[in-house]
Amino acid sequence: MRTSRLESRITNETELIQMYLAPLAVGAPGAFGLKDDAALITMDPGFDLVVSNDPVIAGVHFFADDAPQDIAWKALAVNVSDLAAKAAEPFAYTMALAFPDAPRRDWMTAFCAGLREAQAAFGCTLIGGDTDRTTGPLSIGITAVGRIPAGKLVRRNGAKIGDHVFVTGTIGDAALGLKLRYDVDALNLDEEHRRFLLSRYLRPAPRLAMAPVLRSNASASLDVSDGLLKDAARLAAGASASLEIASLAIPLSAAARAAFSQNAELMQAIATGGDDYEILCAVAAENRDAFCAAAAQEQTLVTEIGTLRRGSGVTLVLPSGQAFAPPHTGYDHFGRA
Amino acid sequence: MRTSRLESRITNETELIQMYLAPLAVGAPGAFGLKDDAALITMDPGFDLVVSNDPVIAGVHFFADDAPQDIAWKALAVNVSDLAAKAAEPFAYTMALAFPDAPRRDWMTAFCAGLREAQAAFGCTLIGGDTDRTTGPLSIGITAVGRIPAGKLVRRNGAKIGDHVFVTGTIGDAALGLKLRYDVDALNLDEEHRRFLLSRYLRPAPRLAMAPVLRSNASASLDVSDGLLKDAARLAAGASASLEIASLAIPLSAAARAAFSQNAELMQAIATGGDDYEILCAVAAENRDAFCAAAAQEQTLVTEIGTLRRGSGVTLVLPSGQAFAPPHTGYDHFGRA
Repeated sequence: MRTSRLESRITNETELIQMYLAPLAVGAPGAFGLKDDAALITMDPGFDLVVSNDPVIAGVHFFADDAPQDIAWKALAVNVSDLAAKAAEPFAYTMALAFPDAPRRDWMTAFCAGLREAQAAFGCTLIGGDTDRTTGPLSIGITAVGRIPAGKLVRRNGAKIGDHVFVTGTIGDAALGLKLRYDVDALNLDEEHRRFLLSRYLRPAPRLAMAPVLRSNASASLDVSDGLLKDAARLAAGASASLEIASLAIPLSAAARAAFSQNAELMQAIATGGDDYEILCAVAAENRDAFCAAAAQEQTLVTEIGTLRRGSGVTLVLPSGQAFAPPHTGYDHFGRA
Repeated sequence: MRTSRLESRITNETELIQMYLAPLAVGAPGAFGLKDDAALITMDPGFDLVVSNDPVIAGVHFFADDAPQDIAWKALAVNVSDLAAKAAEPFAYTMALAFPDAPRRDWMTAFCAGLREAQAAFGCTLIGGDTDRTTGPLSIGITAVGRIPAGKLVRRNGAKIGDHVFVTGTIGDAALGLKLRYDVDALNLDEEHRRFLLSRYLRPAPRLAMAPVLRSNASASLDVSDGLLKDAARLAAGASASLEIASLAIPLSAAARAAFSQNAELMQAIATGGDDYEILCAVAAENRDAFCAAAAQEQTLVTEIGTLRRGSGVTLVLPSGQAFAPPHTGYDHFGRA
């Protein structure tokens, strides 16, 4: 049987770059049609630049057989989420692709469709990068670039004792979605809840609407990418403070609640699973009302999960009053099992 | 036998980032000690930003058992070379490291020593990035950032028919060095020549001194990374022109000349081998003298290798008058063998 052109593989770098990637760069004059060695970024005076560089690798951050549209979306979303957490607005990105084999044309078409969707959703354009073959798994190394009014970046280390800690959206959906990605029957959920959790894992939605809200009101901010407890520990450490989180205060989606109501042990996955891409931030008492009002204005759910206190470390307190001490607080690529 | 601490492996991300990488970021306030989600770049008014993103992968761009100092140097050098070719000056970079195993402490110490050397030589500082485990080979994804006076970037597509084509330094050393990396006796050379060629392969020296020379005098520029003929074809295509290069005009080092004098077939490797990281540029006739004088001022050898003419394509002409048509003009990651 002959392979159709769509199922066949790309045969040279020029085709890969000019047929598939260059159309994604059309909106950016500094991309030079992906025909130059480097990209040009011209800055408006009064703005700083914010840069995030978080690659995703098949078998580590996604499954090699995930839909190419979803892989593309997530590769850009995880970087844009870092910018959003710094209160910056993404506008450009470079992408280094490493393929174990020359990609099939239909795979590449779908991958670029996912990037195009993500670009439109996040407001940024491909400006450069590189394509390689590797003996390893597919790797997508994106460096995302955002702008922010000068001096307005919100650090991880800026909170003070007494500040209130908020999280956007709901927590744990992606960790449960990952369980479903391994075994769709894992959680005994109905179709709608399954679909919701899987989509939260596969298509994280960076909280870009929060950027101006954070700029005006937050004392510190980061995104929840390595697990709520681990990222909360970073926020607390940045303020030389401790944080107690009541498990009941963690905002759960209806789907996560349905899963958790059948199995209380899922709190471990919810509190330490990564990939939420929500924003965790601290807000001084005097900004609390303004923060909540501004978030509501942006139609973004925010939930207060604790207050920074003297001391150090993060504790999760169960309804029984017991402190929950998970064997690990979040993902570590180099940690011993 | 116990493993000494130096030979032992790093056991968590915090150690890897804070003990090894953060010291490389000390000079950049916007790196936030590598303790934040993203890096901040503040720009001086009147400057544009130039960005290059070229990863290197073990087994593709370097040997996994190359000295870690050399691997580090090359990973940064290939990106800085792209900036130099655009006439920009590097000042910062992000780095995404993916390791097949947690690295050994002595390997990481040597790797960071190589980065420190490269940072000092190229004038740039680590500002952010990411560390991952991968099931594939070691991969180092650097995104280098440079500044350039606004509007002064030198494109690949800017030359005109009649412009003179120059190349810096000498060509083919790295391709011959690669042959020696496979087999140190490959070229029947003395120790000094061997060492020179190997070092040109392992430690490319981006032509940063040329940035101001290019800004004032060049109509187009790129670096020679994929082979002289392939990159010359890009320069010619960008001017909708043809280029004839006399093989005798290609500047050779004493070491390359010694190898070539024993084996004329090495012209193939010299003209199409990659990794030179020299600059190939076009200069209008009226700027030729100023260009040569400015390059001499920067103590950089430049050699004229041809003139852009009507037509298309690049031809290498041998001393016999024969046009040399190699089976491929340079490296293509997705090309059929």
